Amino acid sequence: MGKCHALAYNAVNGVFSDCPKLRLEMLCDINSDAGRQFAEAFGFKQFSTEWRDALTNPAVDIISITTPNGLHKEMALAALAAGKHVYCEKPLALTLADAGIMAVAARKSGLKTLVGYNYLYNPAILNAARLIKEGAIGRVYFFRGVNDEDYMADPALPHSWRCEVKKAGTGTLGDLAVHLVSLAHLLMGNITQLTAQTYIAHKNRLLEDHPDKTGTVDNEDIASAFVSFESGARGELSSSRSAWGRKNHLTFEIHGDAGMITFDQERMNELRLYSSHDKPEDQGFRIILTGPEHPPYASFIASRGHQLGFNDLKTMEVANLLRGLAGRDELYPDFDDALRIERVIHGMVRSSETGSSITL
Amino acid sequence: MGKCHALAYNAVNGVFSDCPKLRLEMLCDINSDAGRQFAEAFGFKQFSTEWRDALTNPAVDIISITTPNGLHKEMALAALAAGKHVYCEKPLALTLADAGIMAVAARKSGLKTLVGYNYLYNPAILNAARLIKEGAIGRVYFFRGVNDEDYMADPALPHSWRCEVKKAGTGTLGDLAVHLVSLAHLLMGNITQLTAQTYIAHKNRLLEDHPDKTGTVDNEDIASAFVSFESGARGELSSSRSAWGRKNHLTFEIHGDAGMITFDQERMNELRLYSSHDKPEDQGFRIILTGPEHPPYASFIASRGHQLGFNDLKTMEVANLLRGLAGRDELYPDFDDALRIERVIHGMVRSSETGSSITL
Amino acid sequence: MGKCHALAYNAVNGVFSDCPKLRLEMLCDINSDAGRQFAEAFGFKQFSTEWRDALTNPAVDIISITTPNGLHKEMALAALAAGKHVYCEKPLALTLADAGIMAVAARKSGLKTLVGYNYLYNPAILNAARLIKEGAIGRVYFFRGVNDEDYMADPALPHSWRCEVKKAGTGTLGDLAVHLVSLAHLLMGNITQLTAQTYIAHKNRLLEDHPDKTGTVDNEDIASAFVSFESGARGELSSSRSAWGRKNHLTFEIHGDAGMITFDQERMNELRLYSSHDKPEDQGFRIILTGPEHPPYASFIASRGHQLGFNDLKTMEVANLLRGLAGRDELYPDFDDALRIERVIHGMVRSSETGSSITL
Amino acid sequence: MGKCHALAYNAVNGVFSDCPKLRLEMLCDINSDAGRQFAEAFGFKQFSTEWRDALTNPAVDIISITTPNGLHKEMALAALAAGKHVYCEKPLALTLADAGIMAVAARKSGLKTLVGYNYLYNPAILNAARLIKEGAIGRVYFFRGVNDEDYMADPALPHSWRCEVKKAGTGTLGDLAVHLVSLAHLLMGNITQLTAQTYIAHKNRLLEDHPDKTGTVDNEDIASAFVSFESGARGELSSSRSAWGRKNHLTFEIHGDAGMITFDQERMNELRLYSSHDKPEDQGFRIILTGPEHPPYASFIASRGHQLGFNDLKTMEVANLLRGLAGRDELYPDFDDALRIERVIHGMVRSSETGSSITL
Repeated sequence: MGKCHALAYNAVNGVFSDCPKLRLEMLCDINSDAGRQFAEAFGFKQFSTEWRDALTNPAVDIISITTPNGLHKEMALAALAAGKHVYCEKPLALTLADAGIMAVAARKSGLKTLVGYNYLYNPAILNAARLIKEGAIGRVYFFRGVNDEDYMADPALPHSWRCEVKKAGTGTLGDLAVHLVSLAHLLMGNITQLTAQTYIAHKNRLLEDHPDKTGTVDNEDIASAFVSFESGARGELSSSRSAWGRKNHLTFEIHGDAGMITFDQERMNELRLYSSHDKPEDQGFRIILTGPEHPPYASFIASRGHQLGFNDLKTMEVANLLRGLAGRDELYPDFDDALRIERVIHGMVRSSETGSSITL
Repeated sequence: MGKCHALAYNAVNGVFSDCPKLRLEMLCDINSDAGRQFAEAFGFKQFSTEWRDALTNPAVDIISITTPNGLHKEMALAALAAGKHVYCEKPLALTLADAGIMAVAARKSGLKTLVGYNYLYNPAILNAARLIKEGAIGRVYFFRGVNDEDYMADPALPHSWRCEVKKAGTGTLGDLAVHLVSLAHLLMGNITQLTAQTYIAHKNRLLEDHPDKTGTVDNEDIASAFVSFESGARGELSSSRSAWGRKNHLTFEIHGDAGMITFDQERMNELRLYSSHDKPEDQGFRIILTGPEHPPYASFIASRGHQLGFNDLKTMEVANLLRGLAGRDELYPDFDDALRIERVIHGMVRSSETGSSITL
Repeated sequence: MGKCHALAYNAVNGVFSDCPKLRLEMLCDINSDAGRQFAEAFGFKQFSTEWRDALTNPAVDIISITTPNGLHKEMALAALAAGKHVYCEKPLALTLADAGIMAVAARKSGLKTLVGYNYLYNPAILNAARLIKEGAIGRVYFFRGVNDEDYMADPALPHSWRCEVKKAGTGTLGDLAVHLVSLAHLLMGNITQLTAQTYIAHKNRLLEDHPDKTGTVDNEDIASAFVSFESGARGELSSSRSAWGRKNHLTFEIHGDAGMITFDQERMNELRLYSSHDKPEDQGFRIILTGPEHPPYASFIASRGHQLGFNDLKTMEVANLLRGLAGRDELYPDFDDALRIERVIHGMVRSSETGSSITL
Repeated sequence: MGKCHALAYNAVNGVFSDCPKLRLEMLCDINSDAGRQFAEAFGFKQFSTEWRDALTNPAVDIISITTPNGLHKEMALAALAAGKHVYCEKPLALTLADAGIMAVAARKSGLKTLVGYNYLYNPAILNAARLIKEGAIGRVYFFRGVNDEDYMADPALPHSWRCEVKKAGTGTLGDLAVHLVSLAHLLMGNITQLTAQTYIAHKNRLLEDHPDKTGTVDNEDIASAFVSFESGARGELSSSRSAWGRKNHLTFEIHGDAGMITFDQERMNELRLYSSHDKPEDQGFRIILTGPEHPPYASFIASRGHQLGFNDLKTMEVANLLRGLAGRDELYPDFDDALRIERVIHGMVRSSETGSSITL
């Protein structure tokens, strides 16, 4: 993820001529050799193995945090305390309480924050938002979303920190479902109520060091929820980290009374639109391939329909960061927005444990 | 649906040379002219506007019921009482109580029954069942299914009997979700527990006779459930009759620890299989086009991959009926199996009303 | 193919209430046992092992010929001479000369003829024709079509009559490419000029009886052509019978100055339309799923988008036959139309041999 | 295209830690203001409006040429004469003669060259090459390729330099078909013989300055060829710049006696493989989504199946350039390879004009 960020830093000013110039002042990495090499490859001015050095570096305005999730809180709080803006990878923290503390600190600081939900910047997603806003699919009443991957599908994978609530927090919820929630919030408005169930598909995994013993998996492989949105619309969320064949199956359908929009991140340059306004005999889902008509595609590629990639999404996110810090754009999602996303996934855990509906 | 049955009756002996010869003894239809014409077109020996005439006709062995759902119970009970086997369209009845009475009557009668869940006979579905049984996708732990159509998506559709619990029973549950449950039961085993929510997308519709007034819709447009199967596997069901663009979007994914199977009825000749046994660099969902390798395709078409259609599924169902009555095949689903399906959808209504999980 | 016809005969009057009633007077098959059984299963009044018996049967109005291609000519000429209308499977004959003789005989007889190009009756194809006629894709200037299957892809398949010009005539041209030409003629108008190449992918095949020896394959596995249409539009045709994975890959694209239409027979219920009249940011290929808006779908199925199958196409063809004989519809393609199709494929053979362009 | 290159220059050392460090010494652009801004945004050390300044700059080792095609020759020859390696956009030149002169000069110079055929570096394409080499689809006998876009589909587009042989050279051949040929050469070996036809779909276009007058289009909108490969395999190439809805429809099928591979650049992260070695009832085209198993994907993205984009292809090309100049990789395609590609498209023009087959 650090590399993904660094590539975006190197690309952003080339792609977007309107963005303030990004300075790469300092890279901090606990690993001295690899870190130093990385700093050089990506053109950082300074390197340190001590992350707190960035806090005291007066040339540094923004701290970007791409460490394991369990470290986000300490670093973000320290950065805010040092008067630095914070750009943090998702999720904010392992627990909702910690995420809440971070959001409060950000609010009090008067500083700016951004959380790394890069899928939101895809021109296809922005096009979906535009279509909804323009009424292309009419009154929207239902959302059905799935985020599946297969990185934990193999039963032969050994036990690891990822399988433990203590070390990783949630399972598929914090890894994958948060992305789905971020898209749902962007396109549908906030989730206000939910009922959820979670499920562990692989209850035991062999210990890497003692391959004759197994360790217990205690965070969820699969999670599902029924949700209500503030608009009154309803929806379903579903996510699995153990879904063979799915690599980035972040999909949704948005049902309106005049049409439907669907999307699948594995074909991230395509948006599908069904409009009941088309002539009955010509109606069908149309596959809209992202192109120059869909900003900010044209900043990347001049030709039509030539495909953006995953790393380009990060470049768009960094552009949002730079414009936001310059006061020319709203930073989205900031720590408050991210907290709202994490309230949903932790609400799902709680609902699953209690068997009750949760109001957020 | 009557026409669909009649086409299957005319085709079954031509397609399947092994099936006992079907005799079309009598057609009953309250509409004298249309019925008589229909009877002639399809080669029925006799016609009557009085359905009870079929019960007393000694040449009749099986009664096929394709009337509106509210009439199934009376007719099925009368047919069983008259010593006739019964072939009934789904769902059995408007209420679970009535469906239960029908199943008890069938059991007591010693007669045979079959309920019209035609999607189960698709060679692609049989191939999925074979793959699961052979372990192609390993231990199966998750099922995700959707059945969406758009016949009630248009907000301008007037109010009708379909919108009222009293006249139609459930909404999307009885129309569509039952098909999904039938597939889930076939491929995953029976559902034993569920939590559900239902939702009315269009709460009021204009009255056809008084276009300045609206009538209340009181059965569900959309329904969702988390389910547990007897095997311990989990799943999700979702169904909407108000999903623009979906015409027969009866889809499912089956997640196993060695692969995945997916299906979409709108491409009913394709089954998708992902196998983690393939070489890592060659892994991918393969699209298996139904062909002579997938019985009973070859009884319909000699060439490879030339596509079966919806009406062919009904012909396969009728073949199951004929072989079942001859004792050469198990009739599936019979009234007991169908009751199990309807327990699920009525359990969904109850769970949605009470907010609690239901054990079946 | 005989079974496919018989299924259509049994279905046609049930599906299409407007069609004259079809009488199945006589079935002729050289194989006595199988034929008699077949005749009974499908409800033919009489059976004979002598095909000429049909010619003298006064109850017979139409002779349907589904024998191997080499027998079409003799039978068709005899039927016409006996004053019977003729419904013949494609292609008319093994050689263009024979096809020409048949067409002349038909013209002189004043009787009606129909040749079995069943793909033409697909509602998706009729919809394509309508869209073109209405100008949905503007001025049409290019056609690109492919018809691939894999029934001769396996190098281990033994040598057979199919591999010999003497016994089978052409290879993929007569089997597959004729269908492509029939679609091109229907949608684009007649082909007037062509340049072609053919290719034998498997030059030798093991003899079934002498598996240590090989026989020469002397008709083409693959054939390609550039073509000009009478309208001035251009096109490309390509066909292979040795294309692994293709089962009924009969596809085309039609390029116009305002849009494009594409089709693939392996998804025969879908037509794709791109319209440059859509708003630029909403443009995309839309997948139009065949439904009640596309005649004659609704004669088969009441529900939307529930899929027709290959055998349904034959039923539509037989409906065309019955309406045509009743003078209520144009029989298409008749022997003259079919001759025009065969002129194209034999022109392709000639062009390939001479290396020159051919004007038809 | 300059921006696309510059983005790749900025990214390459971050993505590929093994590549020699690229120095951006000098940017030359005739446009002073925009060029200077661009040079600064992308971190070039110097800027000049005079391209010959780069030739005399001793810090410069490689000259990258991304000017209009008509200028390539003069610049490349000058760069080679100045002892600089040359990295040039495709095609080499407007005429085959000029391209030949450039290739000869490169050969004589002993310097290294690379031509910008970026689609060749896609991991999905490399995977196709590996599969073919490993025999996954057996003996390869047929290639069918298409490269369509729609940038000249609109009849309302005004006349421009693109429409004139004198200014642009070929039409779709030099713009699009060259990419197809580059893929064919990579995967199938060189083309040795061809027969072609070209076609102008829009023969006249309105003059931008005199909208009441039209100018003649004299280069081709559409081109097709039958080809033979040095291996004896055959193929077809087809390309249109006037194909509505196609944005980057660079597709191919490779037919072997044990399977088939297909690809579509509009879904550039997917490769499709059909293997006749799979069990008959499980055979189907599998969609292989590019991931860490397919180098060099993992240099860009850590997660599975998260999609590369068009600009990433250019970064891979630049990596090839850097490794090639360091003697650690073969530069492909160099001027000789590119000349071979251009011989094909100019051969197609010639064949179309003469109506004869061309041997290369």
